[in-house]
Amino acid sequence: MPAWPEVRRTDAVMADGRSLAYYDRPGAPPRDGIDVRPPEAADPASQLRRDPLTGEWTIVAGHRQERTFQPTAQETRAQGCPLCPSTPERATEIPATDYQVVVFDNRFPALTRTAAGIETPDERPGIGRCQVVCFTDDHDARLADLDADRVLLIVQAWADSVARLREDPRLVSCLVFENRGADIGVTLTHPHGQVYAYPFLPPREGRLLDAAARHHADTGRILALDVADAEERDAVRLLAATDHWTAHVPRAARWPFEVRITPRRAIASLDGLHADEAAEFAVLYPRLLRALDDAYGVPMPYVAAWHQAPLAGGAPGAQLFLEVFSTRRAPDRLKYLAGSESAAGVWINDIAPERAAAMLREALA
Amino acid sequence: MPAWPEVRRTDAVMADGRSLAYYDRPGAPPRDGIDVRPPEAADPASQLRRDPLTGEWTIVAGHRQERTFQPTAQETRAQGCPLCPSTPERATEIPATDYQVVVFDNRFPALTRTAAGIETPDERPGIGRCQVVCFTDDHDARLADLDADRVLLIVQAWADSVARLREDPRLVSCLVFENRGADIGVTLTHPHGQVYAYPFLPPREGRLLDAAARHHADTGRILALDVADAEERDAVRLLAATDHWTAHVPRAARWPFEVRITPRRAIASLDGLHADEAAEFAVLYPRLLRALDDAYGVPMPYVAAWHQAPLAGGAPGAQLFLEVFSTRRAPDRLKYLAGSESAAGVWINDIAPERAAAMLREALA
Repeated sequence: MPAWPEVRRTDAVMADGRSLAYYDRPGAPPRDGIDVRPPEAADPASQLRRDPLTGEWTIVAGHRQERTFQPTAQETRAQGCPLCPSTPERATEIPATDYQVVVFDNRFPALTRTAAGIETPDERPGIGRCQVVCFTDDHDARLADLDADRVLLIVQAWADSVARLREDPRLVSCLVFENRGADIGVTLTHPHGQVYAYPFLPPREGRLLDAAARHHADTGRILALDVADAEERDAVRLLAATDHWTAHVPRAARWPFEVRITPRRAIASLDGLHADEAAEFAVLYPRLLRALDDAYGVPMPYVAAWHQAPLAGGAPGAQLFLEVFSTRRAPDRLKYLAGSESAAGVWINDIAPERAAAMLREALA
Repeated sequence: MPAWPEVRRTDAVMADGRSLAYYDRPGAPPRDGIDVRPPEAADPASQLRRDPLTGEWTIVAGHRQERTFQPTAQETRAQGCPLCPSTPERATEIPATDYQVVVFDNRFPALTRTAAGIETPDERPGIGRCQVVCFTDDHDARLADLDADRVLLIVQAWADSVARLREDPRLVSCLVFENRGADIGVTLTHPHGQVYAYPFLPPREGRLLDAAARHHADTGRILALDVADAEERDAVRLLAATDHWTAHVPRAARWPFEVRITPRRAIASLDGLHADEAAEFAVLYPRLLRALDDAYGVPMPYVAAWHQAPLAGGAPGAQLFLEVFSTRRAPDRLKYLAGSESAAGVWINDIAPERAAAMLREALA
């Protein structure tokens, strides 16, 4: 089995106590910079509240603070990008003059390791973890432009982050994701993703795991792999088939553009990937992201999220896969979630998945 | 028990075969106008597809047509408002020179009575019903401005529509809702709502009904009424308490501004309301909508949706209530659904429900 390329992790602590980890290939400068900013009084208290009418948890992030939770795009521009490397004149979130990949605790976290408060069946402190993953120190890059070794380093950082989150028994499930584009509310354009660790099973993960467990109990097989295989045979919504991965538009896609990228092997979580699988993904994924931007010739706002098994405990049939979806339904039009989607939970997709797949295949060619 | 004010319904058929119903108070002119437009070839075929990975149905509205599904805002402006009354020069969707309340089949329906196609466990024709409910012939009004008798007439039209949908045994659940505001993608500004009848139980309705049924089995009581009662006693998120209704911000609100308006009596569906309840709602609801627009002094984009029992069959513990929510989190900022909400199903609310309630109470005062 091919070996993983060497990665050096350097752990650091920011002035206000938040954790930061550099991930570098050998030969990078030492990561010994000091966060010289005055420690800002953090008030990251958030609360989990369960809606008795649906049984679902909401993160109420503003329950103790009056202040704005996240800086506006304007504020961010005025202050300069907090995800760029520091310079002698300006200290950012990353106390280094360059970096490769960095993972650190979000300054405006919805969930924290230290949240405290009352606990009832319908109310709990907002225990969890919200991390930022910077993909590159190049402010103007997109993930789609990074070379394969950098994407592979990102995968290694994701996998290591997931493995480390397993050490906290309070964390139940983790979502590794990227929000890209002002059209979905992203104010920081510097290429970055996020990791959220929840102290409960998120509802959509629960539904994915339920269906996977039923199929596994019935057939002994992995549902997501069976679906990916069927899509490969059917071919009409297939985008790519490589040694270790397939990519297809789901037959029941909720979003105008939606892609599922599935490893061919039963893998529960990101830290279960083998080196050759990750290396192939590092070539395939930027290609697919470029196709997404090329489909209409305008950048696609997108959410990309890895679904995986819960952090602890067995989940029969659970399968790692990456879901990428965009709200863009025309070069100049977005899909909005209105009554049917938001109130009833029924998505209406105006673009046939077969048509979206054909457009993406053309952009891939 | 007070009697319902008299309403006259006039059924009509549009040139392309769609149904239209006028709801008028006595004394209105006869509704005998003829739709003189050339019947346009409709191709309303849509398909329901179940995602095996989640078990949920998506409506794929574009699977047979290449054409744009809905007109753009620009196209609508160029053609004039299709929801205004007709004039001698311009025939609209409503072949009358004035009207009070009108309900008619959507010209661009996601679901239709006549959809046909193959049927498999994961694929069905898009059987259902999508209706438009015009609240007034005044293009520039908002529901919040209508007088109580008009709002009561709207309630009567809603209730009658729900009762009529029960006649089609293929329809399982119906959502009566209003999407308001360009910020949530609404292109037609003429005050109107919609009715969607689905041939399956929508996922969010399923979760509401499951929790209601469990509570009913455990206690013999109605969950939504118990929660509304508790909110009234707690008072901190209460907005209004009248003889027949309470209105509160849910303790686990998902959206920056969210209001639940619940009748005090166990009522399964809109057509179970009594006249005095409806009459009181007709005063309360516009007040609450005005408070929503007044909270920041800018119009709130909102979705307002009635949750109710399925169209047929018993649903123990099911309770009618109206949910109104807005994506506006600051005068100049919206909440976007990104990774946590869209991929994992976990909402993060930056505005404490207690604070939203205080703002709305101030606007109500």
